[in-house]
Amino acid sequence: MTHRNVAMLVIGNEILSGRTREANAYLVARQMFAAGCRLEEIVVVPDECARIIAALNRLRADYDALITSGGIGPTHDDITMQCVADAFGVPLLEHRQTLELMRQYYGAQQLNAGRRRMARLPRGARPIICEKSIAPGAHIGNVYVLAGVPDIFASQLAAILPDFGGRPFLRHEIEVRLPESRFAAALADIQQAFADVEIGSYPGRCGPEPCGKICLSSQDDAALQQARQAVEALIQRLS
Amino acid sequence: MTHRNVAMLVIGNEILSGRTREANAYLVARQMFAAGCRLEEIVVVPDECARIIAALNRLRADYDALITSGGIGPTHDDITMQCVADAFGVPLLEHRQTLELMRQYYGAQQLNAGRRRMARLPRGARPIICEKSIAPGAHIGNVYVLAGVPDIFASQLAAILPDFGGRPFLRHEIEVRLPESRFAAALADIQQAFADVEIGSYPGRCGPEPCGKICLSSQDDAALQQARQAVEALIQRLS
Repeated sequence: MTHRNVAMLVIGNEILSGRTREANAYLVARQMFAAGCRLEEIVVVPDECARIIAALNRLRADYDALITSGGIGPTHDDITMQCVADAFGVPLLEHRQTLELMRQYYGAQQLNAGRRRMARLPRGARPIICEKSIAPGAHIGNVYVLAGVPDIFASQLAAILPDFGGRPFLRHEIEVRLPESRFAAALADIQQAFADVEIGSYPGRCGPEPCGKICLSSQDDAALQQARQAVEALIQRLS
Repeated sequence: MTHRNVAMLVIGNEILSGRTREANAYLVARQMFAAGCRLEEIVVVPDECARIIAALNRLRADYDALITSGGIGPTHDDITMQCVADAFGVPLLEHRQTLELMRQYYGAQQLNAGRRRMARLPRGARPIICEKSIAPGAHIGNVYVLAGVPDIFASQLAAILPDFGGRPFLRHEIEVRLPESRFAAALADIQQAFADVEIGSYPGRCGPEPCGKICLSSQDDAALQQARQAVEALIQRLS
């Protein structure tokens, strides 16, 4: 099944305390846009079981799929796999093939308790294998549990990307050297006329002068081009 | 009243489509940490009334306060003020003093419909004035409605910051050149012993070698220093 809309749940105190600037949601946003899957919501919660489980259950019910980021390492603050198991009402168990892979990778002697912890998956989950880490993510139901470390997250995301998509979204931006209030009413009319094109206006400044962007995006290229012509004609008329 | 915990709601398709990398939540996270107010949750939703209203009502009920970012300009995709009014069940009305300030700023002739739109506030809200924009944010109940443009957001955030805070959080980081699995169990014991200190472990690599950080934060400096000594002793013992 290919997911057409998705939510993302970021788990980690380090984001909420401002220690770390979140990066994985931005990657998901860009890759889902290109793949034609709509990212509908992003939520960031701290490393607290009750909060993680509540967010997991809300988001997996509301959207086709949910991608999580963070909390799957070996330390005490890595509680995501247990929370996912609890959300699905299944036990968290050592996954035999994963344990075997880890044993080969580390050698039996270095497969300590911390590493064994990373071989646990919710019962019924399949491991998400990537080349950046021997510890897997997990896919259970419509939930994909990925690492927080950005290069491991990116590698795991690449592994699951075939599950997501529709017609790719296309985007076109038009620079506008006018204050938004000058074109707001007419732009609203264009938005009304093109229901399949999402039109956003993002103000900016070049020194004292306004220079913003009108951003059009759509899965329908013909509609996008028509809306683009309408916006360009509007801006020309007002400039 | 000083808020001790807060959520943030980011409103904007441009974040979810990957056009723009979100920046305001990261600023809030850092400033709240320094102010001693806990940022408990970040949510990003698209420019859709029903979704915005649902998120507003959930988050303002769950936390002391809610800060929103985005959707308060003059264009059709700027619907936050209307959604806030709807969430509170009050009308959205032109705010007399704000309109008067705008009239002085723009002159009567240039106060067009788009600009007048930005003079509307939910009934009962007070305007949030800042030096970066004549169009105000809004404060109603425990909700603070700010702009999405980062420099305006930052300026409005500075204006409301006195409403937030407790004992400032302190942070100390310790570099660790060991794999997490080596110290995970002992670090969990230290976390157990220091309930008022939040201990996180964030792995990293320097070339092929592990070099992560153990991050301690607390509002209690004495506890932070004790936990720090315990972690440093642990790492020294294992290195």
